[in-house]
Amino acid sequence: MCHDAGMKATLTRQPRSLCPVNIAVEILGDRWTLLVLRDLMLKGRVTFKSMIEAEEGIATNILADRLSRLEAEGIVEKLPDEDDRRRARYTLTTKGLDLAPVLIHMMVWSATYYDTAAPPGEIDEMRRNRRRYLAAVRASAERSGPPERAGKR
Amino acid sequence: MCHDAGMKATLTRQPRSLCPVNIAVEILGDRWTLLVLRDLMLKGRVTFKSMIEAEEGIATNILADRLSRLEAEGIVEKLPDEDDRRRARYTLTTKGLDLAPVLIHMMVWSATYYDTAAPPGEIDEMRRNRRRYLAAVRASAERSGPPERAGKR
Repeated sequence: MCHDAGMKATLTRQPRSLCPVNIAVEILGDRWTLLVLRDLMLKGRVTFKSMIEAEEGIATNILADRLSRLEAEGIVEKLPDEDDRRRARYTLTTKGLDLAPVLIHMMVWSATYYDTAAPPGEIDEMRRNRRRYLAAVRASAERSGPPERAGKR
Repeated sequence: MCHDAGMKATLTRQPRSLCPVNIAVEILGDRWTLLVLRDLMLKGRVTFKSMIEAEEGIATNILADRLSRLEAEGIVEKLPDEDDRRRARYTLTTKGLDLAPVLIHMMVWSATYYDTAAPPGEIDEMRRNRRRYLAAVRASAERSGPPERAGKR
């Protein structure tokens, strides 16, 4: 994480309070944003089309809105696809990748208390070797593909 | 955390998918739920009245709805106040307290990238001594008061 005070931003819309939990909720607190981050971070879904195909069935207008908000906050970057420059691909910035621990702790919590589709081996890896798992997620997201283990989910 | 498979629940409403990120989003993914958890976990706000007074201005009907959903999921418990048994106080269950790492990573992330009201010393403690901070949060929430450090926020 970058602790350089010079990089700090104010939220693009007026927050309800400056409590750091609230700031995160203002950005992530809805029914879709964290799923978009999951797709980018863990599923290797880096195009609009692949995110539309995610099983939760996000609508095109909602996906477009969430991607543009995430871009405005500097969490996601939109780049032309190297293979087809008319198409865009999305990638997480460092700021976006720094949300990995939030997602991982959510997954561990869900898998602890609910029946989920997460393979137990992968959740165990998150619990026991969190740093290693995080490093793999980061390396993989930086290549913009699914992480070796997370991709199996 | 309890890893006993026998304790696992299915969500009280039909989830969009069994992805563990989605399960967490189904429970926490709105503009208020995480703030209610923050109040209980970090602010020592354990009564309805004190949560209504939080600076983000939650409406009474929304707060009542979120508390009852959290109760239905076994994240929050409603107890009669020891001093005034007509009044209720809310407390986090172990399952609720197990969300502390999610909140703490959100706070660290927010404070890294945004101007927030979090005292830098407290965020540093979360970054550097995450386990110690978590233990303090847990001990304090179990007493249903604000943690010594977090209470200063």
